[in-house]
Amino acid sequence: MTILFPKVGLIGKHTNPEVQSTLQSLALFLQTHQIEVIVEQHCAQLMDNLNIRQAARNTIGSLCDLIIVIGGDGSFLDAARSIVDNNVPVIGVNRGRRGFLTDISPQALTQLLDPLLNGAFTEEKRFLLEMEIWRQGKKIHQGMALNEVTFYSGDIAKIIEFQVLIDNQYVYRQRSDGLITATPTGSTAYALAGGGPILHPSLDAFVLVPMHPAVLSSRPIVVKSSSTVELHLMPENLLHPRVSCDGQLHFDANADDRILIKRKAKELRLLHPTDYDYYYTLRSKLGWSS
Amino acid sequence: MTILFPKVGLIGKHTNPEVQSTLQSLALFLQTHQIEVIVEQHCAQLMDNLNIRQAARNTIGSLCDLIIVIGGDGSFLDAARSIVDNNVPVIGVNRGRRGFLTDISPQALTQLLDPLLNGAFTEEKRFLLEMEIWRQGKKIHQGMALNEVTFYSGDIAKIIEFQVLIDNQYVYRQRSDGLITATPTGSTAYALAGGGPILHPSLDAFVLVPMHPAVLSSRPIVVKSSSTVELHLMPENLLHPRVSCDGQLHFDANADDRILIKRKAKELRLLHPTDYDYYYTLRSKLGWSS
Amino acid sequence: MTILFPKVGLIGKHTNPEVQSTLQSLALFLQTHQIEVIVEQHCAQLMDNLNIRQAARNTIGSLCDLIIVIGGDGSFLDAARSIVDNNVPVIGVNRGRRGFLTDISPQALTQLLDPLLNGAFTEEKRFLLEMEIWRQGKKIHQGMALNEVTFYSGDIAKIIEFQVLIDNQYVYRQRSDGLITATPTGSTAYALAGGGPILHPSLDAFVLVPMHPAVLSSRPIVVKSSSTVELHLMPENLLHPRVSCDGQLHFDANADDRILIKRKAKELRLLHPTDYDYYYTLRSKLGWSS
Amino acid sequence: MTILFPKVGLIGKHTNPEVQSTLQSLALFLQTHQIEVIVEQHCAQLMDNLNIRQAARNTIGSLCDLIIVIGGDGSFLDAARSIVDNNVPVIGVNRGRRGFLTDISPQALTQLLDPLLNGAFTEEKRFLLEMEIWRQGKKIHQGMALNEVTFYSGDIAKIIEFQVLIDNQYVYRQRSDGLITATPTGSTAYALAGGGPILHPSLDAFVLVPMHPAVLSSRPIVVKSSSTVELHLMPENLLHPRVSCDGQLHFDANADDRILIKRKAKELRLLHPTDYDYYYTLRSKLGWSS
Repeated sequence: MTILFPKVGLIGKHTNPEVQSTLQSLALFLQTHQIEVIVEQHCAQLMDNLNIRQAARNTIGSLCDLIIVIGGDGSFLDAARSIVDNNVPVIGVNRGRRGFLTDISPQALTQLLDPLLNGAFTEEKRFLLEMEIWRQGKKIHQGMALNEVTFYSGDIAKIIEFQVLIDNQYVYRQRSDGLITATPTGSTAYALAGGGPILHPSLDAFVLVPMHPAVLSSRPIVVKSSSTVELHLMPENLLHPRVSCDGQLHFDANADDRILIKRKAKELRLLHPTDYDYYYTLRSKLGWSS
Repeated sequence: MTILFPKVGLIGKHTNPEVQSTLQSLALFLQTHQIEVIVEQHCAQLMDNLNIRQAARNTIGSLCDLIIVIGGDGSFLDAARSIVDNNVPVIGVNRGRRGFLTDISPQALTQLLDPLLNGAFTEEKRFLLEMEIWRQGKKIHQGMALNEVTFYSGDIAKIIEFQVLIDNQYVYRQRSDGLITATPTGSTAYALAGGGPILHPSLDAFVLVPMHPAVLSSRPIVVKSSSTVELHLMPENLLHPRVSCDGQLHFDANADDRILIKRKAKELRLLHPTDYDYYYTLRSKLGWSS
Repeated sequence: MTILFPKVGLIGKHTNPEVQSTLQSLALFLQTHQIEVIVEQHCAQLMDNLNIRQAARNTIGSLCDLIIVIGGDGSFLDAARSIVDNNVPVIGVNRGRRGFLTDISPQALTQLLDPLLNGAFTEEKRFLLEMEIWRQGKKIHQGMALNEVTFYSGDIAKIIEFQVLIDNQYVYRQRSDGLITATPTGSTAYALAGGGPILHPSLDAFVLVPMHPAVLSSRPIVVKSSSTVELHLMPENLLHPRVSCDGQLHFDANADDRILIKRKAKELRLLHPTDYDYYYTLRSKLGWSS
Repeated sequence: MTILFPKVGLIGKHTNPEVQSTLQSLALFLQTHQIEVIVEQHCAQLMDNLNIRQAARNTIGSLCDLIIVIGGDGSFLDAARSIVDNNVPVIGVNRGRRGFLTDISPQALTQLLDPLLNGAFTEEKRFLLEMEIWRQGKKIHQGMALNEVTFYSGDIAKIIEFQVLIDNQYVYRQRSDGLITATPTGSTAYALAGGGPILHPSLDAFVLVPMHPAVLSSRPIVVKSSSTVELHLMPENLLHPRVSCDGQLHFDANADDRILIKRKAKELRLLHPTDYDYYYTLRSKLGWSS
C-alpha cells in the first residue's frame, strides 16, 4: 500500500504536559504505520524517545508531507504562519480551550487519523493576511496573520485617530481603540468579540471591525479579499500604537506611519476528517445549541 | 452623433408632488436631446403633457434602453424588481429621505445626466434574492428582493421558532422575532439596524441577521451568494409568520412551511456618474463624517 | 405551631400535562401540612381531586396568603398581573424553558417548600409598569406589565415614527420597529434580546430599548422608575402600531395617540428560598458559566 | 447687591491657545463684576495680566466659591477630581471636541455667566467612583473617577481573566480585554463606545461594561451606586493589567490583586444655565437629530 504522507511533522504546545503525552503516543502510532516522524525541536526535547528526528520550526514545513499540530488555536496559528509557505497540509488536534482550528479531539485521535492518513479527508484552503508598516517611504516591519491583524493603541486606554483607505479610496477617519482586520478564519475569534459578523470559511472576503469607536454609527465592513487596506495614523497623534498579528506578533508604529494589509498569495491547506461540519463547530463553540 | 439610449423610461413615486415636477422637466430635457420618453402609466396621468407615451410598470423595462427612477430607495426597490428581467440599465434620482440607491440629486440632474447619456458612467451589477415558500411539496408563493428577504413573526410581539439550513447543512434552530437575509445592497438598509455588517456591493455574498434572538450569542453570518438558505418553521409553531421582500411584498407562512432563499440569476444593471464614490455615500448617509 | 400561610393558592399552565402532576402532588403536600388549598379554576378542572376549593384567576389573590405559580416565566407574568393588587406574596415553580421568575425546580419542590412555609425565605419587591393609551384627551386602553411594555409596528415589517418624552421633556423622534420599556425584572427578557442592559432587581429604574432603530447611534437609556414616559405616534403615520404588555396583552394604537408608561404604585412580593442567588440565575440562564 | 460667588477660580487646558484668550476675557469680565479671580498656576503663567492671584490645582478648590473650567471634557474631568473634596460648585466652558460636561459655549459665555453669577442656575450632583488596588492585604494604590474606572490588559492585545464580585457576591469569571465601570456621567463617554447604556444623571447607579468579552452572551449590568465592585485578577494570569481613572490616571496591577470600586461619599456640584436640557445635549452630541 502506498503511504500518502511518508513524512509527518509534529508541532505542539510544549509547555502543556498533556500535549507531551499526546505527542508521545502519536509519534508511536505513526511509526507503527511506517511513517517517518519529525518533531519540532522544542517539543522533541520533552519526549522520552530522544532518537526521534528533529527539525526547527521554520524548516519542519519544508521537510514533511503533513503537519499535525497539538494544542489550542493559539498553537495552531503560530504553526500555520511557519509552514504556510511550504504548501504542506496541516491538521489540528485540540488540547486547548476552544478549538475552531484544532477540531480533532485527542481521545479520538488514532481512530480519526487512520482513515485520514489513507486519504479520507477534505481539504480546505484558508487564506492569510500580510501586513506591512511603512515609514517615510520605507517598509520597516512586516508580518502575516491567519486570524487577524489588530491595529490598536498600545498606550493606556487612550483613543487613536487614523484614516482607513480601501484600494486607495478614502473610507473614513476614525477615533477608537483600534481596528481589527479579520479573515473568515479569524471572524470567529477576536473580531467576533468586537461585534464582527461570522464569515463562512469559503468566502473570499475579510472584515474590518472598529474597536470601541467614538462615532456610534461605526459598523463592521466586509470587503473582497483582493482589497488592500491602508491605515494611516494621523501625523498629530502622540500615542504609539501597535500592530499585532494573531495576537502573537507585535510591532510598534509611529504617528504618520502607514499600515498596509492585504491577502497573502499562498494559502494554508487545512485537512478535516470527512465528517467535519463547520456549522456544528459554530454551534458547539458559540453555545448556540443550548 | 449616436444616441446611446434612444428610449428612456421614467418611473417615479407618483404620490409625491416634488416627483411630478422633476418628471416634467426631465421628460422635456430628454425630448430636446432627441430621446423618446416612455412614462410609467401612473406617473403619466399626473403629467401635463398628456400625449407622452405611456407603459405599464411590468412592460416598461422591455420597451426602454434605460430606466430613470425618481423617488427614494423605496421607489427604486419597487422599480428594480419590475425591470430586472429586462436587462435594462437603471439610474436613481433622489427624492426621498436617504438614498443609497438614488444617488443623483434632482438639482444636479440635467448637469449629471448629459455626460451619462453620452456614455460617461460606471455600471455596477447588483444581485437580487429569490424567495419561495413551499408547503407539503408545493411551491405556494414566490417573490424577489433587491435589499432583503425578512422572515418574521406576523403576530403580536411573539417569538417564532425555526431551523436554518444552508446548502442543506443544518446551521441552527432559533427562537427570535425572525431573520433578515440581505444582499450587499440591502446590507446598509434594514439589516444594518438589526446589527448586520456592511457588505461591499462588489461582494458575492449575503448575510443572515437574526432579529432579537433569544440566544444572546447569535451573530450575523455572511455566506457565499451561491448558497441556498432554507428556513423551516417548526411544525408545533402556532403563530403565522410572514415573509417580506424589500419590506414591500408580503406573504403568509404556516407551521411546517419551508422558505427557500437564493440568488437570482439575472442581475440589476445600476449606472452611476463617473465620480460615484461608494464610501462617500456611506459616510454621508451613516453620519460618519461628524 | 402557627401556620404562616393558612391559605395557599395554586396557579398553573393548565395546558401542560407536567404541570398537572406537579399541581396534584403539591396540593396533597400542602393539605397534609394543614394548609387550605385553593386552585385556580382552569387548573382545578384538570385535577382528579375535584372537591378541592376553586377560585377565578381575578379573585384567587384576595383569598390567599400565598400564591404558588407552576409553569414558565410566561405563566408567572400572567399570574403576577392578576394578583399584584392583593399584596399577596408569590413563588414560582419552574415548568417551562427558562425561569428567571420561576426559580424553584419541581424536583426540589417539597424539600424547598417546607422551610419556606415555615418562614425561611427572602422577600423581594418587584415593581410593575402601568400603560395607558390616550386618544383626543380620552384614555381608551390601559394595562400593566411586570416585564415590559412594547410599542411596535403591528403591521408588516414597516418602520413607525414616534416621539419620546420623559417627564414632559422631549427626548428624541425615532424611526424604528418600536420601543421596549422594561423593568429590572424584564431586563433579562425581551429587552435583553434588543440590546438592553441587565438592571439589578433592586434598582428603582427602567430602561428604554429601541427596536431596530434607523438612526444607528440610538442607544438604550436607563431612567429613574419615578419617570413618566410618553410615546407620541406621529400624526402622519399610516400604520397601526400596537402596544403589548409582557407580550401577553395587546392593544391597538392610531396615528396621533399618546402612550403613557409609568411605575405602578403596588409592587409584587416575590419570595425566594434563602439560598437564592440572583447572579447564579444570571450565569446559568445566560450561559456565562461555559 | 450681594455677590454670590466672591472668589472664582479659573482652570483651563493651558496648552490650547484658544483657552488662553477665553481665560483672559473671562478674568476681565469677572473683575469688572467685583469678583476676585484666582487662576490655576499653569494657566496663570500664560496670561498677560501677571499680577492676577494664582493657586495650585490642589488648593484652588479650597480658596474659591465657584470654579470655571475652560476646555474639553478631559480638562473638566481632571479639574473635577481636584476640587470635589472642597464642595465647591463648578461650571464647564466648552473649548474641546465634545462637551457633555462643558456645556457653555465660549461665544455665549459672558451672556450666560451674568445670570448664573446672580443665582439663575440649576445645581446637579454628580457622583464619583473611588478605586483601590489591594495586594496581599495592603492597599497599594487608590484613585477616583468622575467618568469611569477601566480595568484592562495593559499588555498587547491579550485577554485577561478575572472574577467580578458585587457586594461580595460572585457575579462571573470573565475573559476579555477588560471591564469599564462607569457612572451616569461616564455612561455617555467610553462606556458607550463599549456598548453600555445611557444612564440618566439623576440615577443612583453605575454600569459594568465588559470590553470585547470572549463569552458572547456577556452584557452590561447596571447596579445600585451603593454597591461595591471587586475585581479579582486570576492568580495564574501572566499579564500585567492596568487600572485607569477617567483615562487620565493609570495604575499597574498584578496577578492575584483585588481592585475595589465604590461610590465616593463627596459629590461634584455641577452648575448649569437654567435652560440646560440634558436630552438636547444627548441628541446633539450623539447625532440623534439627523
